[in-house]
Amino acid sequence: MTRVDTLVRGTLVNVNTATLEDRAIAIDDGEVVALEERPADRELEAEYVAPGLIDAHKHVESSMVTVPQYGDAMVPRGVTSVVHDPHEIANVLGAAGVRAVFEDATKTPLKVRFSVPSSVPASSLQDGGATLDADDVVALLDHEHVVALGEVMDLPALVSGETDLHAKIRAARERGLTVDGHLPRVTGSDLQEAARYLDTDHESITEAEAREKVDLGFRVYLREGSSSKNLADLVGLVDEVPTRRLSLCSDDRDVVDLVENGGVDFAVRKAIDLGVDPVEAVQMATLNTAEAYDLPFGRIEPGAPADLVLLDDLETWAVEHVLVDGNLDPTRTDRDPPSTALSTGTVDFDPITGRDLALEAPDSSTERADVRVIDLTGGIQTGRAEASLPIVDGAIEPRPDDDVLSIAVVERHGRDGGIGRGFVRGLGLERGAIGSTVAHDAHNCVVAGTSVDAMAQVANHLRDVDGGIAVSDPDRDGEGIAAVPLPVAGLMSDRPLTVVCDQFETVIDRTEDLGLDRHGLMTLSFLALEVIPEYRLTNRGLVDVERWEHVDVVIE
Amino acid sequence: MTRVDTLVRGTLVNVNTATLEDRAIAIDDGEVVALEERPADRELEAEYVAPGLIDAHKHVESSMVTVPQYGDAMVPRGVTSVVHDPHEIANVLGAAGVRAVFEDATKTPLKVRFSVPSSVPASSLQDGGATLDADDVVALLDHEHVVALGEVMDLPALVSGETDLHAKIRAARERGLTVDGHLPRVTGSDLQEAARYLDTDHESITEAEAREKVDLGFRVYLREGSSSKNLADLVGLVDEVPTRRLSLCSDDRDVVDLVENGGVDFAVRKAIDLGVDPVEAVQMATLNTAEAYDLPFGRIEPGAPADLVLLDDLETWAVEHVLVDGNLDPTRTDRDPPSTALSTGTVDFDPITGRDLALEAPDSSTERADVRVIDLTGGIQTGRAEASLPIVDGAIEPRPDDDVLSIAVVERHGRDGGIGRGFVRGLGLERGAIGSTVAHDAHNCVVAGTSVDAMAQVANHLRDVDGGIAVSDPDRDGEGIAAVPLPVAGLMSDRPLTVVCDQFETVIDRTEDLGLDRHGLMTLSFLALEVIPEYRLTNRGLVDVERWEHVDVVIE
Repeated sequence: MTRVDTLVRGTLVNVNTATLEDRAIAIDDGEVVALEERPADRELEAEYVAPGLIDAHKHVESSMVTVPQYGDAMVPRGVTSVVHDPHEIANVLGAAGVRAVFEDATKTPLKVRFSVPSSVPASSLQDGGATLDADDVVALLDHEHVVALGEVMDLPALVSGETDLHAKIRAARERGLTVDGHLPRVTGSDLQEAARYLDTDHESITEAEAREKVDLGFRVYLREGSSSKNLADLVGLVDEVPTRRLSLCSDDRDVVDLVENGGVDFAVRKAIDLGVDPVEAVQMATLNTAEAYDLPFGRIEPGAPADLVLLDDLETWAVEHVLVDGNLDPTRTDRDPPSTALSTGTVDFDPITGRDLALEAPDSSTERADVRVIDLTGGIQTGRAEASLPIVDGAIEPRPDDDVLSIAVVERHGRDGGIGRGFVRGLGLERGAIGSTVAHDAHNCVVAGTSVDAMAQVANHLRDVDGGIAVSDPDRDGEGIAAVPLPVAGLMSDRPLTVVCDQFETVIDRTEDLGLDRHGLMTLSFLALEVIPEYRLTNRGLVDVERWEHVDVVIE
Repeated sequence: MTRVDTLVRGTLVNVNTATLEDRAIAIDDGEVVALEERPADRELEAEYVAPGLIDAHKHVESSMVTVPQYGDAMVPRGVTSVVHDPHEIANVLGAAGVRAVFEDATKTPLKVRFSVPSSVPASSLQDGGATLDADDVVALLDHEHVVALGEVMDLPALVSGETDLHAKIRAARERGLTVDGHLPRVTGSDLQEAARYLDTDHESITEAEAREKVDLGFRVYLREGSSSKNLADLVGLVDEVPTRRLSLCSDDRDVVDLVENGGVDFAVRKAIDLGVDPVEAVQMATLNTAEAYDLPFGRIEPGAPADLVLLDDLETWAVEHVLVDGNLDPTRTDRDPPSTALSTGTVDFDPITGRDLALEAPDSSTERADVRVIDLTGGIQTGRAEASLPIVDGAIEPRPDDDVLSIAVVERHGRDGGIGRGFVRGLGLERGAIGSTVAHDAHNCVVAGTSVDAMAQVANHLRDVDGGIAVSDPDRDGEGIAAVPLPVAGLMSDRPLTVVCDQFETVIDRTEDLGLDRHGLMTLSFLALEVIPEYRLTNRGLVDVERWEHVDVVIE
């Protein structure tokens, strides 16, 4: 019998047969060569042996670390692959940024496969860092590790047959790639039409919505992110339809959740907690996803890459060891800065003063002005509100006592795109200011606060550190500003996930001191996303999303 | 609501959800555009609506008709696609023959997808019509309707890493194609090794064998052919493993079975009869197979081609109408002779006499000779036997009274490959002769009989009609020879399936008159297949398969 380099014994989670079976797994030169005893240089024992998990849909940028750092954190958890849609860096750096991520992905044992962002920019109502036109997208689709066209968001363009979008879809089809959808609350005839072109969706929040999608042939991903935790609401689907059409994904998951609970491994654990058969839960993060994207891994069988998770316990997903391509507990050997780390200097605007962020009153002879206000109505939803605000020295002032704060969006991509100014109600900030260069999708610099001076201080700090998330508390003058520096495209750090987590926790603590709730920073990062109703602010000013146009802040 | 050309109402067999649901299916321009009511130019009603069936593995040549004729017969049965491995025509005409079949496939509404034959010729112990070397195979793999490398048969070459075979496999992998296996009774470590390279297998005859393959990651096809009817023996697997890894296929199915019972539609019906859930049975001939070969059909959902079967009853697969790409009960418009019909003139040898087919005695002074005899032991199996036969006029004579007949294999590809001569026991022929140019895999002209003169008459007739299957009964002198003319490559007719069936029934009746059992002609067609133990006859003489060499018929 041919000698192999590694033999693993344990209860195999056989995703092909949906069974648990005692097996020896013979591995040689990175490949599973047999499911039987072989003489081996190294023998390993485990209670359970499962295929490495695949996160079916993920924006790694949401972890605030680079892909290699993300790999360092995820592989030990048994997540050996991710389908990464680098939508955020594409909005900042375009095709060059996406290619830098392709390059970074070669430096981690994590098997990163890609969805090419299909919808950059989100609109023409804001100046982002870059555009991916159809030619860019098609060129990117040819990369060997691209498995899909990224989530198609523009339903009107899809339904109306808009040329550019359909060229992207056609190019994906011609290459045999999957087309990912993004269909929140889309139903009925719109969904029927979308189903003609799209293969997957991860935006369902109710079981009925998800069921409708499965009925129409979608592969439905049950998402367990940070702001969108849909698994508990959707898990009943597992009893309704064959799970072969279901996958698990984490989509956007923040650094704290990742460090404390993990990524798609958490979704597997939670699914089991919610009563899903453990083998089916594993299938939803391995074989099913492999089939969705025609991936050669995600199962343990002769001929497959040896991506194995050795577990003490299956139901709690207690990982003891991980093999990727037969390498035991692999770590990066290449510790050079990632290619995306060259993507610094993306926070490019002239230093600003408080006055730059203040909204001038059209008529400085009056004492008050009536203004339109972005009204936070829960989560990242907003409504339309109005307020009467005082005018001081010709500028319209916020009214922190009523939780009406100033907000500004500073174009930060060096395009002289200027500053949008407005007001927001409901953040809860009692003093100081917060700011972020993570501001979907254009990722300009968004700042909000009780005073424009504090906001300018935050914005200038973010400029100095090449981007990130920052908070200024005037009561802590000695300590200056607390920040998570995210110098990679203004979105990510190349520090380890745990380091960024600590930085983020510090910032969160500071914002809570100021009266912000725990998700306030995330709320802020969506206030510039001009495709979500009702009011949003871009660097070009206030947007009425339903009217799909800019409106004046001041009501004349 | 947009008007569509066709609306079908009925109980949808939804293979994505494995459910039966009342639905309206809106079809426009050949595509399913919605699963909901739409105003339509034409409305159809049915009890059940299922996706068109896909036969997962098929050699259309075994039906003895061309691909267009096969389509004419199968589409009305709700079989709208077939994965066709044109292995037989490849052995006669090589790559040109395969390309002619590609061309023929454009003339039928049947959606023919291809496996490219991987193992032509079967050996170098016989002169066939053609060779497909690695370069030929790779070139054929690039055809747009090729979905797989055809069944890999040469296990020793696979296991030993033989360069040519592995080049073919690698080429298939590089193109994202499936690699079909052919692993009868392969088990244990050999199977483990085969599993590294092969994706599918259709040769299991026991449930244990099939289960072992599924465990190792194979997609297992449950075969219901004519000589190999494995479904009943394998159906228990359906309760053991998820059916998503199982498909139905008909492989080799003769014209009588096809006319009387159908193709893979029969397998669906039989699976249901055997207790398989009807929806799962349909999945095994639609979605599962579509996934095996990454086919865009095999399900009814928006965006899929409108390949629908309208049924009066699901369990009996009672077909009322069939739509292919939205065309109702489509028939061929192109009635020109198929491209393969140009493949005539493939039965090329000089007219022969009885004396040409007689085995000369090495020593004509003796009265008897001891000879090696091919011993039929059931089905297409053979063993080694010996006999002492009389010598008359210097030729060794058969002994029909003991069912020891003469057999000859005449090279028929115009290669001057000569004639192999020998003896066979167990055919049961009491007088006359039978012959066929369908003689796996080299498809030379094989004839057997009680007299070499009758055999020569049959061979010359087959030469005159460009190939086929023929029988000569000396008691019917007035009626001459009965034959199924198969002028297309000596394997197929371009007459309708029912016509060929009638011809074949006539020939069968004649052979039964002669004492042959119903499967005797099929047995004959395998007596020249030099890769199945123990003895076989090729145009170069008797082969001892285990020794993998020619041996003398006469024992010195």
